[in-house]
Amino acid sequence: MTLKMYDLAAADPAIRFSPNCWRVRMALAHKGLDVETIAWRFTDKEVISFSQQGKTPVLVDGDRWIADSWSIAEYLDEARPDTPKLFECAQSKAHAWFVKNWIETAVNPGVAKQIIVPLFAMLDEKDKSYFRETREKAFGMTLEAFGADAADALATLRKTLQPLRVTLSTQPFLGGQAPSFADYVAFGAFQWARTSAPHDILEEGDVVAAWRATLLEMYDGLAGNMPARVA
Amino acid sequence: MTLKMYDLAAADPAIRFSPNCWRVRMALAHKGLDVETIAWRFTDKEVISFSQQGKTPVLVDGDRWIADSWSIAEYLDEARPDTPKLFECAQSKAHAWFVKNWIETAVNPGVAKQIIVPLFAMLDEKDKSYFRETREKAFGMTLEAFGADAADALATLRKTLQPLRVTLSTQPFLGGQAPSFADYVAFGAFQWARTSAPHDILEEGDVVAAWRATLLEMYDGLAGNMPARVA
Repeated sequence: MTLKMYDLAAADPAIRFSPNCWRVRMALAHKGLDVETIAWRFTDKEVISFSQQGKTPVLVDGDRWIADSWSIAEYLDEARPDTPKLFECAQSKAHAWFVKNWIETAVNPGVAKQIIVPLFAMLDEKDKSYFRETREKAFGMTLEAFGADAADALATLRKTLQPLRVTLSTQPFLGGQAPSFADYVAFGAFQWARTSAPHDILEEGDVVAAWRATLLEMYDGLAGNMPARVA
Repeated sequence: MTLKMYDLAAADPAIRFSPNCWRVRMALAHKGLDVETIAWRFTDKEVISFSQQGKTPVLVDGDRWIADSWSIAEYLDEARPDTPKLFECAQSKAHAWFVKNWIETAVNPGVAKQIIVPLFAMLDEKDKSYFRETREKAFGMTLEAFGADAADALATLRKTLQPLRVTLSTQPFLGGQAPSFADYVAFGAFQWARTSAPHDILEEGDVVAAWRATLLEMYDGLAGNMPARVA
């Protein structure tokens, strides 16, 4: 039975921008697993109420469902043991957990500053008040105020990426010679930016951009086929 | 034959403060390997000239020598295959390489600001002019100017540690249920601070401090037996 995945979408249902959903799309491709994605909006809470929570990604595997990108990755390694592993050993998974926490605490906030206002404009009308209210409560300020120092934040973000840059200057992927789930977690942040920001968050010639280009091309261009907001 | 290691020392030869040497001391203990450490000073270049470079740690294993903490860790896993692994699989090592690059680019510079002036005072007289000249050239300013904003840098450093903090709030070590070489690389930064800074770089109650305390106690208190500069 084909896997199904609820995947966060913009007003245009073909535009999928969620960093956490992209982690899973790439993980499924890594394993050679087909998936039927279902465009989902922030306010479609009742559609995924079976998962007892209100966020995507949610993966449906027959009569089972799994929410949360990390849990989905763990599930896939267990439930599809004959497919390429996302985590080669327990210690590797533990280290990848640090990479995830680095992305979420050090990188994603800087990316969010770049995309918040243009992303808001891309959303379905029914999502806009929900998005504005929840994010403004979390930020303690308006979306526009949060995004106002995007240029300064971009310079800081590029410096923050230095450990990723150094790593990718000496090995092709975070996972070494082949991508691991850590690569897909990191890639999710860049795909989020790529689909939502009006400018490239990376400078030309950055080794991080070369790694991103490789991931955009992998799996028959799965991620690269998603239109970039940047022309 | 007992392993020997050239280990950077202060004026007091019992005080070993080098973060990179501590990585190796912990790695050797992880493997249950005895080592004879030899106090070495920055200017003792001729003493390790056999290694064709001028920095410690240098490990001597019979008629072989290995310089650089990362290379030593790789060597130990290969040369002592029956001892507990520092890297459980190739992907784990690749992920640990990111942790190392994060420590070196994001954490160590903030630690250096805390310790640079007090560490200078601890050095052997013969090392002082070498240390001042090389560091001032690297920093582009005097040691005292580099350390002048230590208080601001400390606040930034504590924020920078957030991904480590989040990780250690959900698993006991970077390596998961047991320490990996990534733990020892990270620990080296804190032991460097502990032996050299006049204040604790961590706040009481920080989960990172609890992890550090665990590592200080491991291996019969190997690292904890080294006197802290903080009373």
